[in-house]
Amino acid sequence: MTKPVRNVLYIMCDQLRRDYLSCYGHPHLHTPNIDRLAAAGVRFSRAYTQGTICGPSRMSAYTGRYVSSHQVAWNAVPLPLDELTIGDYLRPAGIRTALVGKTHATPNSDAQQRLAMAPDSVQAQQLNEVGFEAYFRHDGLFPDDPVFDGKREGAPYTHYLRGLGYAGKNPWHDWANAAAGENGEILSGWKMRHSHLPARVPEQHSETVYTTDRAIDFIGEQGEQPWCLHLSYIKPHWPYIAPAPYHALYGAEQVLPAVQPAQISDHPVYAAFRQHEESRNFSREEVRLNVIPTYMGLIKQVDDQLGRLFDYLQSNGRWDDTLIVFTSDHGDFLGDHYLGEKEFLLEQAVGVPLIVRDPRPAADITRGTVDDRLAETIDALPTFLEALGLPAADHRLEGRSLVPLLHGATPNWRKYAIAEYDYAFQAPARERLAQPIDRCRMYMVRSERFKYLAYDGYRPQLFDLQNDPQELHDLGVDPAYSAVREEHQGYLFDWLRGLKRRTTISNQEIDVRGQRFRYGEPEEEKMVPIGVW
Amino acid sequence: MTKPVRNVLYIMCDQLRRDYLSCYGHPHLHTPNIDRLAAAGVRFSRAYTQGTICGPSRMSAYTGRYVSSHQVAWNAVPLPLDELTIGDYLRPAGIRTALVGKTHATPNSDAQQRLAMAPDSVQAQQLNEVGFEAYFRHDGLFPDDPVFDGKREGAPYTHYLRGLGYAGKNPWHDWANAAAGENGEILSGWKMRHSHLPARVPEQHSETVYTTDRAIDFIGEQGEQPWCLHLSYIKPHWPYIAPAPYHALYGAEQVLPAVQPAQISDHPVYAAFRQHEESRNFSREEVRLNVIPTYMGLIKQVDDQLGRLFDYLQSNGRWDDTLIVFTSDHGDFLGDHYLGEKEFLLEQAVGVPLIVRDPRPAADITRGTVDDRLAETIDALPTFLEALGLPAADHRLEGRSLVPLLHGATPNWRKYAIAEYDYAFQAPARERLAQPIDRCRMYMVRSERFKYLAYDGYRPQLFDLQNDPQELHDLGVDPAYSAVREEHQGYLFDWLRGLKRRTTISNQEIDVRGQRFRYGEPEEEKMVPIGVW
Repeated sequence: MTKPVRNVLYIMCDQLRRDYLSCYGHPHLHTPNIDRLAAAGVRFSRAYTQGTICGPSRMSAYTGRYVSSHQVAWNAVPLPLDELTIGDYLRPAGIRTALVGKTHATPNSDAQQRLAMAPDSVQAQQLNEVGFEAYFRHDGLFPDDPVFDGKREGAPYTHYLRGLGYAGKNPWHDWANAAAGENGEILSGWKMRHSHLPARVPEQHSETVYTTDRAIDFIGEQGEQPWCLHLSYIKPHWPYIAPAPYHALYGAEQVLPAVQPAQISDHPVYAAFRQHEESRNFSREEVRLNVIPTYMGLIKQVDDQLGRLFDYLQSNGRWDDTLIVFTSDHGDFLGDHYLGEKEFLLEQAVGVPLIVRDPRPAADITRGTVDDRLAETIDALPTFLEALGLPAADHRLEGRSLVPLLHGATPNWRKYAIAEYDYAFQAPARERLAQPIDRCRMYMVRSERFKYLAYDGYRPQLFDLQNDPQELHDLGVDPAYSAVREEHQGYLFDWLRGLKRRTTISNQEIDVRGQRFRYGEPEEEKMVPIGVW
Repeated sequence: MTKPVRNVLYIMCDQLRRDYLSCYGHPHLHTPNIDRLAAAGVRFSRAYTQGTICGPSRMSAYTGRYVSSHQVAWNAVPLPLDELTIGDYLRPAGIRTALVGKTHATPNSDAQQRLAMAPDSVQAQQLNEVGFEAYFRHDGLFPDDPVFDGKREGAPYTHYLRGLGYAGKNPWHDWANAAAGENGEILSGWKMRHSHLPARVPEQHSETVYTTDRAIDFIGEQGEQPWCLHLSYIKPHWPYIAPAPYHALYGAEQVLPAVQPAQISDHPVYAAFRQHEESRNFSREEVRLNVIPTYMGLIKQVDDQLGRLFDYLQSNGRWDDTLIVFTSDHGDFLGDHYLGEKEFLLEQAVGVPLIVRDPRPAADITRGTVDDRLAETIDALPTFLEALGLPAADHRLEGRSLVPLLHGATPNWRKYAIAEYDYAFQAPARERLAQPIDRCRMYMVRSERFKYLAYDGYRPQLFDLQNDPQELHDLGVDPAYSAVREEHQGYLFDWLRGLKRRTTISNQEIDVRGQRFRYGEPEEEKMVPIGVW
């Protein structure tokens, strides 16, 4: 038996595309520190998120379960109280499980009220933080609407900025995510026309640096005690604005050409998403050329900060007893496929980087390799459990531990990866398509070669990723591929049947009871004597 | 608008087969009181339970959701804390929602402990009673094993019997469910060889009478205040033993011949169930002839008691302002198909009686009629909500209100009914089939004409209920029916996709948010200014 690792560092970026890292092939954006992690671990080349916006994706990461199981179909949808998260599994083993950065967790206040839980109880607080200790929570999105006042005032970063003299109601917006105009006026970072300008704070006060500082504080504070830290950067998520010098590291000549198929699929759901404001804007070259260099700069800044963090871990011994995972919650279209944002289940949104470093000698055999097997965001938690030597909770967890892969094994592996998206919450798209609120679900089934997209109420789409990695040719109605579509619909059916829907009792307990009752057996002393003559 | 009804009386028998009532066609067992309810309401001829043992079926009844949704796959599996039940919907409207009889609810102690809920809090108590006020809880199954000591001592019926002088550790077993031997020795009612003998208590002290007494007490106590009462008889469930004179009302000549196909299906799961002790014993004519007359007597006693209850309701005005539902949690094979007990998804187990009386004039048009549309146990709760004028909760509830049907409407109706069973808990069958614990699920898809049974790891079964109502001919491998099987597999796929998996947010709230954010729209003042140039 390999000795368990002691700590877990679970790093997540927000809205980071898989192909915007040099280790994943970006020709101009050099990310030597993330690449250094990849060289010391395994880089999964085909990793997928289970949900293509923050809330669903993150709840899959934290619960180890598909979106259909944890039920957080969109942002700001509360997690059911019954869902267990990373902290629920690790804390009983004495592992301090903390958050630095973003979770996008939403309190399930209705359920807590129904159960008369005291809002200030430890349990309610933990539920509200989806099982993490909020060492430093920073959801990092405080638009100027009264709806967000509470979140903004509750955010430590707001007060950190004010303490530095960045005054006002919303320093997150007015300083960290805005630029200065020629006459000193505030130019909102929300507006993509301002993306080329530097933020109004120097780099050392930006979200990415402050978040890294807090992570280093936590790790230092923890000393030799075991911990799990979720280090969760808000960037390179909107607003697309970077502090100097990162706003100007890249230029139009480093922006890759947009993936814009000559023949656009006529799929109605795709058509509806193409009409979104962000899609129409990102379809314009002017917008791409103004935003993408800054998007790259924000990633470069994260990479630099991770370099600082990794140096710190190497200096204090933590590099050798900590399992490190680097990933992202979803990608960003940036104009590819004439889309902005994410949501739609094409590679730019659903593909995520996933790099895992197991510090143990058993993983030496795979260091620096690329693993092409289909990985999912829900694999992180089972990986933590196995690496830490904790029970597998296989009646709940729907992901698979990656530890065997890291140790060079070739177990039977999944045939397909699944992602989901529900556009019920997007009234414009839903109304445009005239779909009822319960019929707005889309599913991705990604097999070794193909990607099949199923839609409530519409024909499927199909892409041959082997011959068409850019997903330019929709084979969803091509008669030559009807057997492939049927096969993939079969996978979806399989997956739906196999979801874990018996979470209040463990498989071990089921077996113990089954043996104890011997129901149906002709035994003299069985506990419930049903069937005896 | 029809005025709402004021009260709900939800009557359930345990293990009562649909065809063991005279209104459902039994030629020898006369049940004039249940027939009287049918004559005053609507009798659903094709009603199905969603689970063929107590726990799963009842949790479907109480939550209005399929077994895969509420997750109680077997008896003594805790309901997730997030599942709402009848009382959660009705109590906030000022309707006292009480239980008299059985629920088979199992406390979710793990989850309550995790949330640090005080075990004696009102909330914990309600959760433990799946949302009912336990006016008189009587699960009525106290085998002589120490595992059941707590349940037995917590049961009011135990103390009621002791108070009457029926002494001992387990008066439920030793008196109410045992017979006396020639020398006064206790002959256990569990043993079917004793079924023809009278119980050791007179009728007035039996479970069925005492349960009815408590229901009348509750209704009387409630006066003119609104209520919902779940009156839930343990009988005619095992042990098959009846008090005089019900033990001797019927004889072998009134026992219908067993449904025993000449050619037995070779389906492996069916074969495994046929090997159960109760199946082997019930396949013997000696057993059937000794048990079935008592099974009939137990039903006759329930019918007599319901006569007393209905008279009471008619005498005090409640007949006119109370919605009454009569049903059962599942059936009993009694030797048909060479099976005992229930579980397997053939009509004897999965078919339930369902009679609904809406007292309002709007329902006069359907009184005394038979409705052939496919009804499900999960339809009860939505029916209550509509009849009481409460919101529909359609983001959670998977059943459909029967009120339109009771009022003579012909809405678009369901194409198929679903039931599920999971034999993971039955170690002997599971081991015999060498199936892993996660692969023991079976599903019924019952369409207008066919019944399709899907099994993890095995071929499906198919029955043509129009031409073969007794399910004697398994068409599961008949090439002539491959299109029918495919169609029904499509229904199962449909159903799995349509399960309600977004229960922490209402559809109304989704729409409100969608309108508020106008995500993707080019509006100047949208709340989160994503996509703006």
